[in-house]
Amino acid sequence: MKEKVITFGEVLLRLSAPGNRRFVQSDVFELNYGGSEGNVAASLSTFGVPASYVTAVPDNELGAAALSAFNSWGVDTSFSLKSGSRLGLYFLEQGAALRPGKVIYDRSDSSFASLQPGTIDWKALFQNASWFHWSGISPALNPSLAAVCLEALKAASDLGLTISADLNYRANLWKYGKNPVEVMPELIQYCDVLLGGKGDSELMLGIPAKEENSLEQVFSAWQKQFPRLKTIASTGRANANASRYQWQGYLWQEGKLYSSKQYEITHIVDRVGAGDSYMAGIIYGLIKNHNDGQRVVDFATAASCLKHTIPGDVNLATVAEVEKLMEGDTGGRISR
Amino acid sequence: MKEKVITFGEVLLRLSAPGNRRFVQSDVFELNYGGSEGNVAASLSTFGVPASYVTAVPDNELGAAALSAFNSWGVDTSFSLKSGSRLGLYFLEQGAALRPGKVIYDRSDSSFASLQPGTIDWKALFQNASWFHWSGISPALNPSLAAVCLEALKAASDLGLTISADLNYRANLWKYGKNPVEVMPELIQYCDVLLGGKGDSELMLGIPAKEENSLEQVFSAWQKQFPRLKTIASTGRANANASRYQWQGYLWQEGKLYSSKQYEITHIVDRVGAGDSYMAGIIYGLIKNHNDGQRVVDFATAASCLKHTIPGDVNLATVAEVEKLMEGDTGGRISR
Amino acid sequence: MKEKVITFGEVLLRLSAPGNRRFVQSDVFELNYGGSEGNVAASLSTFGVPASYVTAVPDNELGAAALSAFNSWGVDTSFSLKSGSRLGLYFLEQGAALRPGKVIYDRSDSSFASLQPGTIDWKALFQNASWFHWSGISPALNPSLAAVCLEALKAASDLGLTISADLNYRANLWKYGKNPVEVMPELIQYCDVLLGGKGDSELMLGIPAKEENSLEQVFSAWQKQFPRLKTIASTGRANANASRYQWQGYLWQEGKLYSSKQYEITHIVDRVGAGDSYMAGIIYGLIKNHNDGQRVVDFATAASCLKHTIPGDVNLATVAEVEKLMEGDTGGRISR
Amino acid sequence: MKEKVITFGEVLLRLSAPGNRRFVQSDVFELNYGGSEGNVAASLSTFGVPASYVTAVPDNELGAAALSAFNSWGVDTSFSLKSGSRLGLYFLEQGAALRPGKVIYDRSDSSFASLQPGTIDWKALFQNASWFHWSGISPALNPSLAAVCLEALKAASDLGLTISADLNYRANLWKYGKNPVEVMPELIQYCDVLLGGKGDSELMLGIPAKEENSLEQVFSAWQKQFPRLKTIASTGRANANASRYQWQGYLWQEGKLYSSKQYEITHIVDRVGAGDSYMAGIIYGLIKNHNDGQRVVDFATAASCLKHTIPGDVNLATVAEVEKLMEGDTGGRISR
Amino acid sequence: MKEKVITFGEVLLRLSAPGNRRFVQSDVFELNYGGSEGNVAASLSTFGVPASYVTAVPDNELGAAALSAFNSWGVDTSFSLKSGSRLGLYFLEQGAALRPGKVIYDRSDSSFASLQPGTIDWKALFQNASWFHWSGISPALNPSLAAVCLEALKAASDLGLTISADLNYRANLWKYGKNPVEVMPELIQYCDVLLGGKGDSELMLGIPAKEENSLEQVFSAWQKQFPRLKTIASTGRANANASRYQWQGYLWQEGKLYSSKQYEITHIVDRVGAGDSYMAGIIYGLIKNHNDGQRVVDFATAASCLKHTIPGDVNLATVAEVEKLMEGDTGGRISR
Amino acid sequence: MKEKVITFGEVLLRLSAPGNRRFVQSDVFELNYGGSEGNVAASLSTFGVPASYVTAVPDNELGAAALSAFNSWGVDTSFSLKSGSRLGLYFLEQGAALRPGKVIYDRSDSSFASLQPGTIDWKALFQNASWFHWSGISPALNPSLAAVCLEALKAASDLGLTISADLNYRANLWKYGKNPVEVMPELIQYCDVLLGGKGDSELMLGIPAKEENSLEQVFSAWQKQFPRLKTIASTGRANANASRYQWQGYLWQEGKLYSSKQYEITHIVDRVGAGDSYMAGIIYGLIKNHNDGQRVVDFATAASCLKHTIPGDVNLATVAEVEKLMEGDTGGRISR
Repeated sequence: MKEKVITFGEVLLRLSAPGNRRFVQSDVFELNYGGSEGNVAASLSTFGVPASYVTAVPDNELGAAALSAFNSWGVDTSFSLKSGSRLGLYFLEQGAALRPGKVIYDRSDSSFASLQPGTIDWKALFQNASWFHWSGISPALNPSLAAVCLEALKAASDLGLTISADLNYRANLWKYGKNPVEVMPELIQYCDVLLGGKGDSELMLGIPAKEENSLEQVFSAWQKQFPRLKTIASTGRANANASRYQWQGYLWQEGKLYSSKQYEITHIVDRVGAGDSYMAGIIYGLIKNHNDGQRVVDFATAASCLKHTIPGDVNLATVAEVEKLMEGDTGGRISR
Repeated sequence: MKEKVITFGEVLLRLSAPGNRRFVQSDVFELNYGGSEGNVAASLSTFGVPASYVTAVPDNELGAAALSAFNSWGVDTSFSLKSGSRLGLYFLEQGAALRPGKVIYDRSDSSFASLQPGTIDWKALFQNASWFHWSGISPALNPSLAAVCLEALKAASDLGLTISADLNYRANLWKYGKNPVEVMPELIQYCDVLLGGKGDSELMLGIPAKEENSLEQVFSAWQKQFPRLKTIASTGRANANASRYQWQGYLWQEGKLYSSKQYEITHIVDRVGAGDSYMAGIIYGLIKNHNDGQRVVDFATAASCLKHTIPGDVNLATVAEVEKLMEGDTGGRISR
Repeated sequence: MKEKVITFGEVLLRLSAPGNRRFVQSDVFELNYGGSEGNVAASLSTFGVPASYVTAVPDNELGAAALSAFNSWGVDTSFSLKSGSRLGLYFLEQGAALRPGKVIYDRSDSSFASLQPGTIDWKALFQNASWFHWSGISPALNPSLAAVCLEALKAASDLGLTISADLNYRANLWKYGKNPVEVMPELIQYCDVLLGGKGDSELMLGIPAKEENSLEQVFSAWQKQFPRLKTIASTGRANANASRYQWQGYLWQEGKLYSSKQYEITHIVDRVGAGDSYMAGIIYGLIKNHNDGQRVVDFATAASCLKHTIPGDVNLATVAEVEKLMEGDTGGRISR
Repeated sequence: MKEKVITFGEVLLRLSAPGNRRFVQSDVFELNYGGSEGNVAASLSTFGVPASYVTAVPDNELGAAALSAFNSWGVDTSFSLKSGSRLGLYFLEQGAALRPGKVIYDRSDSSFASLQPGTIDWKALFQNASWFHWSGISPALNPSLAAVCLEALKAASDLGLTISADLNYRANLWKYGKNPVEVMPELIQYCDVLLGGKGDSELMLGIPAKEENSLEQVFSAWQKQFPRLKTIASTGRANANASRYQWQGYLWQEGKLYSSKQYEITHIVDRVGAGDSYMAGIIYGLIKNHNDGQRVVDFATAASCLKHTIPGDVNLATVAEVEKLMEGDTGGRISR
Repeated sequence: MKEKVITFGEVLLRLSAPGNRRFVQSDVFELNYGGSEGNVAASLSTFGVPASYVTAVPDNELGAAALSAFNSWGVDTSFSLKSGSRLGLYFLEQGAALRPGKVIYDRSDSSFASLQPGTIDWKALFQNASWFHWSGISPALNPSLAAVCLEALKAASDLGLTISADLNYRANLWKYGKNPVEVMPELIQYCDVLLGGKGDSELMLGIPAKEENSLEQVFSAWQKQFPRLKTIASTGRANANASRYQWQGYLWQEGKLYSSKQYEITHIVDRVGAGDSYMAGIIYGLIKNHNDGQRVVDFATAASCLKHTIPGDVNLATVAEVEKLMEGDTGGRISR
Repeated sequence: MKEKVITFGEVLLRLSAPGNRRFVQSDVFELNYGGSEGNVAASLSTFGVPASYVTAVPDNELGAAALSAFNSWGVDTSFSLKSGSRLGLYFLEQGAALRPGKVIYDRSDSSFASLQPGTIDWKALFQNASWFHWSGISPALNPSLAAVCLEALKAASDLGLTISADLNYRANLWKYGKNPVEVMPELIQYCDVLLGGKGDSELMLGIPAKEENSLEQVFSAWQKQFPRLKTIASTGRANANASRYQWQGYLWQEGKLYSSKQYEITHIVDRVGAGDSYMAGIIYGLIKNHNDGQRVVDFATAASCLKHTIPGDVNLATVAEVEKLMEGDTGGRISR
């Protein structure tokens, strides 16, 4: 069976200040290897879906450690490249209550950012795969990466894979002279499944969306512009500070908007990767329950609720755990 | 004075994933030695009540470390046995917000589970004691332990000790072919004080209890069946997730039900042992204030609230701290 | 420009039980160097205001480490003395939910407490300064320190510095035979700016204040008694336990009371030094925005909200971070 | 090419007292997953040789974590079973200077020890493999495991794999009523490569060996008894305490004994797995340099020297690192 | 049987910089509770000899924690006093190679140092004891403590206990205006067993000893001066730096000097308490093997070698471990 | 007095694998801020010599933390620039015994490496200074830095400062198309004091030096080529592995070679920065004892011996500690 999901994107070494410390108070940094698309692969692998992560790392011990981490989550990294000169990094200070978290990116000139079109044999790589996932972070890095994304999308499309994307807007990227809207639409036209929000509409897709427009209106407009889009997913936060908020998922499918219940996440452990865990939940749901939009959004939302309680970028919740929460068991009683 | 409380049960080494980590994310496990009945002894000792813990550990460094921990809390372990081949273990992953905690038991064939009737000289052991406490965990292990409990209860009863039990139902135990209801009633008939809840009624005592029955009705039925019972205690949770809930204590005495105020425990540090801390509070209260049911339930509930803020299985709160909370000081101001 | 703020007081080594552990459960203590007045200096330095800390430490490695910590925050300690025989200590157990924090002071006979009048050349020290800050902790230690405070105040007053004080009542101090009210009024008469609350009024200033009196009434009475007072600041807590509360700041200036919005601090990391961070915010505000009482109280309150999320005694929040919170951004979204 | 090496044996969770602490002084245990045969697989994988580990783990989070660790080292675990009820454990206290290390085994009734003959499809498993490695630990557990070893050996032999074994005598095993000499010879007759020492000769193989016999004499006698044996490897320690010793490797091949230089390991970090790292070095050498016995023993000895400096059971040294040490670079200069 | 050993002295909280850090580099201090005489009690208790520690601690959580630590080692602390205002402290920086360790004492005005003669009921306390141990640290603190030592010695002597002392010279104590030689001789005359060295002879006992005098000559002179002395013990170091040295024990008994073999301690973990562990070994040996001086010195020396490998002040080596080392097993092989 | 020493070079954040772990085994990295020239400044400051560090850091929290670390050691950083986009990093794996340490540099495009000539006002900066120190690392980065070094040297020379340099060859730098010998001689001609070794002679200075040449011969040749050189310092290692070696210092002055005693460093804690600590010792010695070459070399060698026992890049040993070791006290006895 060709269930395998291929993800493509940059792996980063995250260096976080421990506990609630500020950078200047830290005498160690905690390590986590992650990356938006790889996080999706790792979550899918934890759900039992074969997943592959295509990235590039330097040929040194840090590059090896990054791939080793994904291997430990069961993700195949055999298509990843050892090339370029450095691993991308980011430094993270977790927020608390009224103090927001902080990220310092240090990813310029990374192995991944140095990738050139024509390097990866996409046809070979997609041979045993049914799904390709990428995100708006890669084309945000530089024109070469935008071109690599395009060649990947064409190959995936030619081979009939389902294609999903996370718009993933990052204000600190897109520094190479192009606006997202000059780059993204060409890429999005190949996509079947998209994760994004109202705020991305004009910025990344060039489709105006007003505060008062409903999600249905916005996503219908997207679908009109990008006719291949069948599914659009989104998340929403309310009553938020850095340690707690309410969290809800949405799924637009064939003109219909499904929403999950609103969960109260009272004690956030780590919100990094919450969107990726939602994306993985959507992909899992679409693969397993493609006729039941409500179940898809419920699964993805419950999955991403659990991610908020797990340190690191990756959602290590299992299908059984997600389903237990979907069924309403929020009491947190220790099973013994 | 013969105030000494004897407790009997299995000591376990708890190995917990640190912080909010999942098992697979941990590169250390934190150690805590505990056990339902020993936790009661340690809390009583911290309250200033002489307490003894009768258990069995292997004759190796881990067995010695287990007893050493109880000694550090002032609990006498001189009657504990060094026998059998291994210390029972359990692995704990603490929950957070919408993710429940998880326990993996690894206690088969432990030193305690290998105890045989006729091994312990209960008469000698009860010589300077006024109270005996046990729980439904011991008879859940195997028929020998059920028999050991019975011999202990007969001896304690003969010597006129007050006897308390915690029903302590554990779905993962009771695997040896008998249902609790085939074993527990014979043992409960020796008890003066019992900790349990509506859910245990049919399962462990064979007395049907419906959702709509009041606690008064249920506990009256228990008392009818087990005429020696003078006091029945219970706890209740509301609005729960793994990190916070509301907590309330109940005490039924001579036909009257007392309830504590409902506390809001907004940030749970460690809920393991909460029931044991409540049991210890009840025993303390009955020893010190036997005429004042309200004060007993208020003390026990406040004690167990404090337990939720203390890592490990054992409630290290003092009488002064419990009384300060009983008196309504919930503001958490640092005293300095 | 003579913007430099001089603070004077005792530096303490804080030894805290890690995480939520009780003292008896700890096998390490975490170190933080702080002190009410030094905390003010460190916060001001982090705001970009040149600040100097005048204290006394023993001439050993611990004394050096204490000054080194303040140097790392950019505070000048070149006027601090190496004298006396020991560094003052305090042991801290952080509270959680319904369990209050606990402080054990061990500061008797410290280097600072051994200071004698006539030792410090206040004139030289105040040469390039515009502001002097002290607190009620110093005169609480012993008569010599009260005398040292007086000589400092006279010198500062002669040189035209703005003088601020934090009343900082500590029940465990004031043990040398005098009540605060016998000592403080003489010192307060030199002050332009005061931090205190209704509860301090009779106790420290000898001015009766009833529960039903408004803050306006109380602070007007203070101003009448101490005519040099131009600004009086205060804070208030509501709905508190050890892990969360609501927090609000007040500022009385020329007969007018300004109050900040009430912030909900849902997950307190470290409340020690919250008052000092508020004091620093007030001083910063008065230096930068002396005509806008509302902005001063808003800045100081937002600053002290952030302090509650930062471990240690010192507020390491920057002006930019405080201003972002003042502007209403409480959502805690990670900026990236 | 069919280079793949299959190893078979028990995976254990090692729980070690941190640093130089004794068990009773520890409040955490450090985790490492290992097992003699799996350690060989992990070292080979680090050398770039495809390796597979066949073991059994319980179907719970600890079992998953054990396999995850081997996956992180690049070892294929897809043939491992999820069966049985518990993961085998051992507790380790590292020695220092004159204090020897200490191991407490807790591996009875583990998932692996519960394996039955007929469960594993050895033929399928050996399909793409050229080498099979096992050790004397498995038949030491119980008769079923001895039988499983025999069926594996027959299958491997039928399929023409090279077979290696480590005698691996453990005094605390072999408790089921048979002496090693009643079990091992039947299994050893299938082996091409053996790791053992003079002390094992009579005990495990039934071939008397006196103190004064040379290694050549002993290994010639082994070869006579087990004609399939082509290569016998051994190691020696001298001037030892728990923190330092001299270490030397030996290799007997076709009647000739090769010895490595004697290395001085002045600061041992972790000696557990040293023999396994030597075994992996021998297998690597035989695969890569089968005509050069001296190079094989030099590589294996240098590899195992590096293992002594790496925490955990597994040798994470690369071929390049081993070869640098073989070439005489012992100066420890940091390359930068 | 009256085997119980009573020890008397100050308990201290030791706060150590972790690993090889300097004080200024530490952000935690590691905690150990110890004290020369208590260390002797804890080692004896670990050897199976009932031991009691008489000390004084403040009535706060730190005092409780100090006694709790000794309880965890099986030492009876029921005669210890809760009095005075603070626990004595010392700060420790471990040395390494050519950098010596460093101690900062902070023990003035401790609970123990505040003890007054007439407070302790020595008669009652010595009722079930056969041995009393003290050291030169107590009379070094102040005249009151010297007087308390004298009253203890008189009582012990009257009741026929064997009395041992460790001269334990500390340059940083003896600050109250008396030289040791003005105080110690009066106390030493009650002693049967003494631990000291050539360097203490003139300084503490007023008996000149030249470099060229043999230990036999020096100890004979001591015995002449203090006729009750039957046994004198001593230790020697050679070829020392902070991380390794050679260590040897001596025992003078009835005119004969026994010496142990010289051990090479190549990797010192913690040398604090080495002398106390030797003292405990001597007491154990004298109780168990009083006719065999050679065995006594061999046991004590092996015991103290093991202490050097154990973190903290207390020797947690068992009799079996000591005897294994005495029998020459220095190879450090892990037993498994 | 114009004693102030100015150092110029790149500050790096060092991220080290904890303990003896390999990179892939680490889940935290320990942080140290250092840099060859800054390490010299910090050691001098610890010796009591006013020192300033001129470097460049990005205007973010990591840049602030880097300067904060130097401030904590008493180093003035007020001339450092906030410019450029990233802090240079290096990753360190400490070696042990036969396993060498490993450094992965990640310093390209750092703030410091982006410095341009004409940016720094050297004249102003050198106003109150008597000494300028730089090293061969800066011109190894790129042509701009080589030009900045040259402008600094000219300015320092014009203002009459003493100038010292450390040749500091790094094989992994010098990647911009020039060999050291094309760049360094022009810079060295301004120097009064040089640290280097025989191996640098041809490589960096273009002066051939054979194995059989004595240090006197080599350094005389250097002096001939660079007539301003008055003092040349060097160090030597023998019998080395990653955990221990012998260490000796040399000083050539006016035709005479002084050598220190050879120290045995049996347990190396951290060898990074050993050369910098030696350089600082030489500078200190030249400032304080300029007529006594033997004392200078003895001080510098003892200082650098102590560095090997201190974690991090910086030597935190004081003058008193160095002098105690110079006087022959290598016994490592704890002073108490």
